[in-house]
Amino acid sequence: MYVIIVGSGRLGSGLARVLSSEGNDVAVVDLPLDNRRLGPSFDGLVIEGNPIDADALENAGIRKADFFIAATADDNVNAAAIQMAKGVYNVPIAIARISDPEKEDFYRKLGFDTVCPTTSGMNQILDYVRDRTFSSLQATIDPSTICVLPRQEWIGNRLRTIRMPHGRKIVALVRQGKIHGYEEGISVRSDDSIVLARVGKE
Amino acid sequence: MYVIIVGSGRLGSGLARVLSSEGNDVAVVDLPLDNRRLGPSFDGLVIEGNPIDADALENAGIRKADFFIAATADDNVNAAAIQMAKGVYNVPIAIARISDPEKEDFYRKLGFDTVCPTTSGMNQILDYVRDRTFSSLQATIDPSTICVLPRQEWIGNRLRTIRMPHGRKIVALVRQGKIHGYEEGISVRSDDSIVLARVGKE
Repeated sequence: MYVIIVGSGRLGSGLARVLSSEGNDVAVVDLPLDNRRLGPSFDGLVIEGNPIDADALENAGIRKADFFIAATADDNVNAAAIQMAKGVYNVPIAIARISDPEKEDFYRKLGFDTVCPTTSGMNQILDYVRDRTFSSLQATIDPSTICVLPRQEWIGNRLRTIRMPHGRKIVALVRQGKIHGYEEGISVRSDDSIVLARVGKE
Repeated sequence: MYVIIVGSGRLGSGLARVLSSEGNDVAVVDLPLDNRRLGPSFDGLVIEGNPIDADALENAGIRKADFFIAATADDNVNAAAIQMAKGVYNVPIAIARISDPEKEDFYRKLGFDTVCPTTSGMNQILDYVRDRTFSSLQATIDPSTICVLPRQEWIGNRLRTIRMPHGRKIVALVRQGKIHGYEEGISVRSDDSIVLARVGKE
């Protein structure tokens, strides 16, 4: 995968290192560029340039990018950058870090993919306060199996009739603390929790 | 619950508003104090003072606090503040926002409770890149039901023999994409995912 990351701070550099080490082609664009954070082992492309400058983005290879990540410290720059990536260069997936929860809400409603560390940090801390014991278990959460709230269009349908995106399957639902398997022909209610497993990656 | 929050930026003010609206007694300490972010509806205690100054913390009522949250923008201040809260004032639970993942790792190893929005933001974005479909489901994750990796001491034991902290129960395990109920007497393996539900809050 060809990934362009704008921003070379902690978040951008951390992502660049991990994605590069996992075999992706990574280009980082920032001005000034923080080479120290990228580290000596990073072997991707490094472009010193403004993250919303078309020349810099083209030099970074945005025309062939599969994935664009805007991770500068400035919400407005990140929002403008993913608008360019998606609107001008048709990058299939573009995601922006937005620190202000209200702005994140605004951009989400416009259909942008965003991540808001402020909101996720808040939620983590609220989990601690509300529910001390549960939090100690959060550390061992299994990323490959998740429980989700039912989507509106699932409600009233039997588990086996619900189509999942590729790579996921429904294995059960939890209703009032009790498990109900996929085979039982049970219909989804709005207060159920749906257990999803990852498939094909054993 | 009596909660002291140091820092009145987005994270601190956001937490103060939510925790106060949920019926907790909340005191906010910061210098300068950002009253605008707290908003007119916040009715907790507001102390303009240095978050690591004993007088300011005592004025905020730290001697009776159940919970202490260090959410300033400065990792060092946050770390020093929770050291004071726990070490000097014996606040039962103290948690610090640490933005630098390396520092977070350091403080975690010392036994501090920390939250690192940089790391959680990174993990969210990595989920998008690695697994596009799963990510779209992350938005609907059910906070009351979680799947965790088995702890070392659970492995080899039957589900019904594993004791959970108060407020949680095991309802099933997922093995290779298939659900196994609590009743089956199945023993936990290291590659299982354990489904936990919240109890007593229906």
